[in-house]
Amino acid sequence: MAENEKNFEIRTDLAVEERESFPGDGGEIAGVALREWRESGSAVKMTEVQILDEHGARAMGKPEGVYLTLEADGMAGNDEEEAQEIASEFAVQLSRLLLREQKDADTDGERGEKNRESGGIDSVKQETGFEGRRILIVGLGNAFVTPDALGPRTMANLRVTRHLDGQFGEGFCKERHLPLLSAIVPGVMAQTGMESAEILKGIVGETKPEMVVVIDALAARSVRRLGTTIQLTDTGIHPGSGVGNHRHGLTRESLGVPVFAVGVPTVVSATSIVHDTISSLETWEIEAKGGWEEHLNPELRDLYVTPPDIDERIQRISKILCEGIHRALFGRETRL
Amino acid sequence: MAENEKNFEIRTDLAVEERESFPGDGGEIAGVALREWRESGSAVKMTEVQILDEHGARAMGKPEGVYLTLEADGMAGNDEEEAQEIASEFAVQLSRLLLREQKDADTDGERGEKNRESGGIDSVKQETGFEGRRILIVGLGNAFVTPDALGPRTMANLRVTRHLDGQFGEGFCKERHLPLLSAIVPGVMAQTGMESAEILKGIVGETKPEMVVVIDALAARSVRRLGTTIQLTDTGIHPGSGVGNHRHGLTRESLGVPVFAVGVPTVVSATSIVHDTISSLETWEIEAKGGWEEHLNPELRDLYVTPPDIDERIQRISKILCEGIHRALFGRETRL
Amino acid sequence: MAENEKNFEIRTDLAVEERESFPGDGGEIAGVALREWRESGSAVKMTEVQILDEHGARAMGKPEGVYLTLEADGMAGNDEEEAQEIASEFAVQLSRLLLREQKDADTDGERGEKNRESGGIDSVKQETGFEGRRILIVGLGNAFVTPDALGPRTMANLRVTRHLDGQFGEGFCKERHLPLLSAIVPGVMAQTGMESAEILKGIVGETKPEMVVVIDALAARSVRRLGTTIQLTDTGIHPGSGVGNHRHGLTRESLGVPVFAVGVPTVVSATSIVHDTISSLETWEIEAKGGWEEHLNPELRDLYVTPPDIDERIQRISKILCEGIHRALFGRETRL
Amino acid sequence: MAENEKNFEIRTDLAVEERESFPGDGGEIAGVALREWRESGSAVKMTEVQILDEHGARAMGKPEGVYLTLEADGMAGNDEEEAQEIASEFAVQLSRLLLREQKDADTDGERGEKNRESGGIDSVKQETGFEGRRILIVGLGNAFVTPDALGPRTMANLRVTRHLDGQFGEGFCKERHLPLLSAIVPGVMAQTGMESAEILKGIVGETKPEMVVVIDALAARSVRRLGTTIQLTDTGIHPGSGVGNHRHGLTRESLGVPVFAVGVPTVVSATSIVHDTISSLETWEIEAKGGWEEHLNPELRDLYVTPPDIDERIQRISKILCEGIHRALFGRETRL
Repeated sequence: MAENEKNFEIRTDLAVEERESFPGDGGEIAGVALREWRESGSAVKMTEVQILDEHGARAMGKPEGVYLTLEADGMAGNDEEEAQEIASEFAVQLSRLLLREQKDADTDGERGEKNRESGGIDSVKQETGFEGRRILIVGLGNAFVTPDALGPRTMANLRVTRHLDGQFGEGFCKERHLPLLSAIVPGVMAQTGMESAEILKGIVGETKPEMVVVIDALAARSVRRLGTTIQLTDTGIHPGSGVGNHRHGLTRESLGVPVFAVGVPTVVSATSIVHDTISSLETWEIEAKGGWEEHLNPELRDLYVTPPDIDERIQRISKILCEGIHRALFGRETRL
Repeated sequence: MAENEKNFEIRTDLAVEERESFPGDGGEIAGVALREWRESGSAVKMTEVQILDEHGARAMGKPEGVYLTLEADGMAGNDEEEAQEIASEFAVQLSRLLLREQKDADTDGERGEKNRESGGIDSVKQETGFEGRRILIVGLGNAFVTPDALGPRTMANLRVTRHLDGQFGEGFCKERHLPLLSAIVPGVMAQTGMESAEILKGIVGETKPEMVVVIDALAARSVRRLGTTIQLTDTGIHPGSGVGNHRHGLTRESLGVPVFAVGVPTVVSATSIVHDTISSLETWEIEAKGGWEEHLNPELRDLYVTPPDIDERIQRISKILCEGIHRALFGRETRL
Repeated sequence: MAENEKNFEIRTDLAVEERESFPGDGGEIAGVALREWRESGSAVKMTEVQILDEHGARAMGKPEGVYLTLEADGMAGNDEEEAQEIASEFAVQLSRLLLREQKDADTDGERGEKNRESGGIDSVKQETGFEGRRILIVGLGNAFVTPDALGPRTMANLRVTRHLDGQFGEGFCKERHLPLLSAIVPGVMAQTGMESAEILKGIVGETKPEMVVVIDALAARSVRRLGTTIQLTDTGIHPGSGVGNHRHGLTRESLGVPVFAVGVPTVVSATSIVHDTISSLETWEIEAKGGWEEHLNPELRDLYVTPPDIDERIQRISKILCEGIHRALFGRETRL
Repeated sequence: MAENEKNFEIRTDLAVEERESFPGDGGEIAGVALREWRESGSAVKMTEVQILDEHGARAMGKPEGVYLTLEADGMAGNDEEEAQEIASEFAVQLSRLLLREQKDADTDGERGEKNRESGGIDSVKQETGFEGRRILIVGLGNAFVTPDALGPRTMANLRVTRHLDGQFGEGFCKERHLPLLSAIVPGVMAQTGMESAEILKGIVGETKPEMVVVIDALAARSVRRLGTTIQLTDTGIHPGSGVGNHRHGLTRESLGVPVFAVGVPTVVSATSIVHDTISSLETWEIEAKGGWEEHLNPELRDLYVTPPDIDERIQRISKILCEGIHRALFGRETRL
């Protein structure tokens, strides 16, 4: 029956929602590890879904890797202190995820990670683990379509540093405990005639970053998550994910370097809305349930549902993401 | 039973959709006149709904007045010639609607209207009926929310002339067969802290236009109409219409001068999507039908459904509207 | 000779530059009071020019009133702490200037002012002196012309509150120690066909703010001041000031309520650049000096000089202004 | 003396201005060919400067190649017919320049060129010479700095087609007489941390266009040319040219495929303004002339002069460029 349930696929880009869709909340899924926690007094609820092997990947419909979720209703609100707290927590988690990867590659891999573990963001003003590291940040999506503009808007305030080495001499950034940060907004295919993956492959090949971090708007199943959840993953961008034009994959395989993704759900598919309503009807017969999907207007599959205050939500969360990236990579606040 | 059907209200800003919702397509509604036509060889289907009296207004849930609809699938497409044809037809209808009003007020009211009737847009290069007339165009909506940006985007390319009289002497515009055109994008309440109606009342009181034309994004019931339909009306903006924040009324009563509205549907409410799917289910029992609305997630009422290419659609149709306004009021093409 | 010097007018919107143009830095000018200071350890240099009477107004070419200048090279830089310090100092001065006016009008005028004097921005979290006050903020200028976009960009992040009383009941804002803040970007005449003064007169008449604060980009004489100086004044906007289209006056006389102006120089006139170079030539004969202005290309009078990083400077300073306004009127930081 | 004059370098990106700076308008320069013409009745003045050899390149300070200039005061104006005429003439010249190059590479090189010569834009609805050709258009510059935004704004309305082959099958474009057009706005170094040249080298290497066309804003010497001149060249972008951050070279050498550049002057350097005024002073002594440059404020070298209506000019000319590109590459008008 679980199998049967799962046959009806409503797309979500969130691993945490995919996990929730399995019946019985205490149930284990082979190959999938789940951990939930909340720092004491914190507004942010943390969930880590790890897909450990092929079986887990098949069950979840997502590649093996770590999917970390930060949830806080306050992301969509107006409270300044809560926004700062979310940015700070996001910075810690982003730093950890990126350094976890780096540690494997480093010979002196202990370095950064150790610092992060012991300290938290405020104690590492001098050492972030990213000094002199070459990192490319990518703002995916269409800047002119509000729910798809999360990536481009986050880029708008990002501080890049990679060119400083070119201007002031090699080693300039590293000596100042700065990463060599570059950033790009590749646009969407209807604007460029090219896949984002092609553009990024070319840029990565030419500028040789050690890792890529992609910011993207996601599709969720639950309306409640729109603009209130951040997902971090070390699996990159899967084909078919995101808002608007369905993305091609951006992964370690396609780009040749580790690819991390930071995403925030900004839309729910129209199909999902219909499904939720019908599922909630008491008078509904189980036989009918099996069949209603055939009656679904095919046009619905391409339609998105978005809240009326989507612009404010995206404006706000893109600032939280930008601030968090600055804190993680530069080790200090850069708010104005 | 018809009554019963009508009890379930899914909002539409289009009179033509309201009219369609009455059962039986040949049926007459007291107080409502319907006329449909298509110029031979034209891509544009025309529908005029006239709400003639209080009975019609009650039945339709809209104020008395003329509601003219232009429909063409090509609005959403890429064909240049069809776009030109739609702009041209829109110009003719806009001119007629505005002059109809003016004729009543003029002592020499025959003037412009006669020209329009006999000629069409190409033959009136010299005389448009709007020479020296003071007209304020308003771009309602939120420029930062794609489906709500139709008004602001249409304003972006509009040519204003009212200030030329101030710069070059009174009569400058009239002698050149130009209207005294002014334009404003009032913003939305979350940006300004003021109702658009307050802002416009102030501006109208100070700058004294003879008429106001409001451009606004609308909500439709049918997905098929998104970006493919233009509605013109002489009733202004009704309270509660439009996308995003629900508008206050902008009418002759509130502003003191005739208010026309030009609208294009860019969203469908999430409720409407759910309703359509459920209505199409064969296995659905009539008893259940009466009750499903109670099961509707209240959050849905605030959510909009919009197609993924909404940006291109709005970009394209805002150019058609701007070009049509230029042709109607200036009597010539102004395409670059 | 001083008279002669002053005959050659290169426009500046800064009272502090006008004052400097008088020969002899120790010299007194009748009707003009000058005060300069710097808080110990502060990066911000303060200058207050008061034009006390008609004689001073004639000599300075500006109306009677207070002109307060904050100068800090760090405004154009990237240091976060310095930006916070400037925002904080700006907040204190803005608050004082607005309350000075209000005190005269209030029966219990001591209230706010006393608080400000004794405390500084951090100690007035509860009481700002603006609780329940109706204040309209205006972002003058053309959002599409970078050096003229300071006003519109400052508005982009401003939080308005006036509508909350409408939504949640009268008194809502006052009870929460909030002002009733509204904001408008009126656009420029080439976009609207209307004078900003007309639009604002209408809006002020309709929405009845107690005071108006106008944000505007200014013209300076010295390149060094571009993006490094903030001027506050209680005289409003003088006719002919600002960047781009020359503004009509926005004053207590024209709008009927006190009008404050906050300006930042973003351009220098091309004439000024030419003048400075010629003045610095040692080989230049004094006779020639008297005559060179006749040789000036008349086209130059309409041209502006602006630094290549004008976008970053305006982006940065508009955030400082927005943050300062929030601190002054809401009594707390609102940085994200 | 000519040598002496030329020692004082005020930068211009226009070959036609460089050519004018040589004393004596009839004088020949070895290695530089000059041709001027105007089609009968046309508003557009054409000038072709050809730099034929190393001597010419040294004298002109620009690489060998063709520099074609279209001049028309109407570019900055509002006349629709003149704008159409300019777009049409630009399309013809762009097509010729691109096909001239292609002919050399083609085995059947006569094809397109012959058509162009005999026909002009209206007669080649079916055959443009670009069917199935892979062309990348680049919009250089900073979208947020008005005078540098020409490239990004021209891209905003450009129609790309390269992805259609991917969506509908190889050969789709060619069968429809369409080029495989792609487009990119690489941003500026302060936004990306990368050289535009790096980004483009990566993208060209990955997507393999046969030629690149770069749109860029230029610096001129004469205020009169701002927004009234288009320069086309087959030499690409020279290091140090353009507005804002000084560009690295984009040439056949750096990108590996032919690079064409389309530029419009939008700024004049402040130095140029000062120079023109001083040069026009009658009382000026020739001895002083030799020395004044030393007195020039070094800050001036980084400052730009731009007209107050720069936004409208760029808006208008970017539409002319986009329309011209469409006509040249698609063989038809695409105005809405």
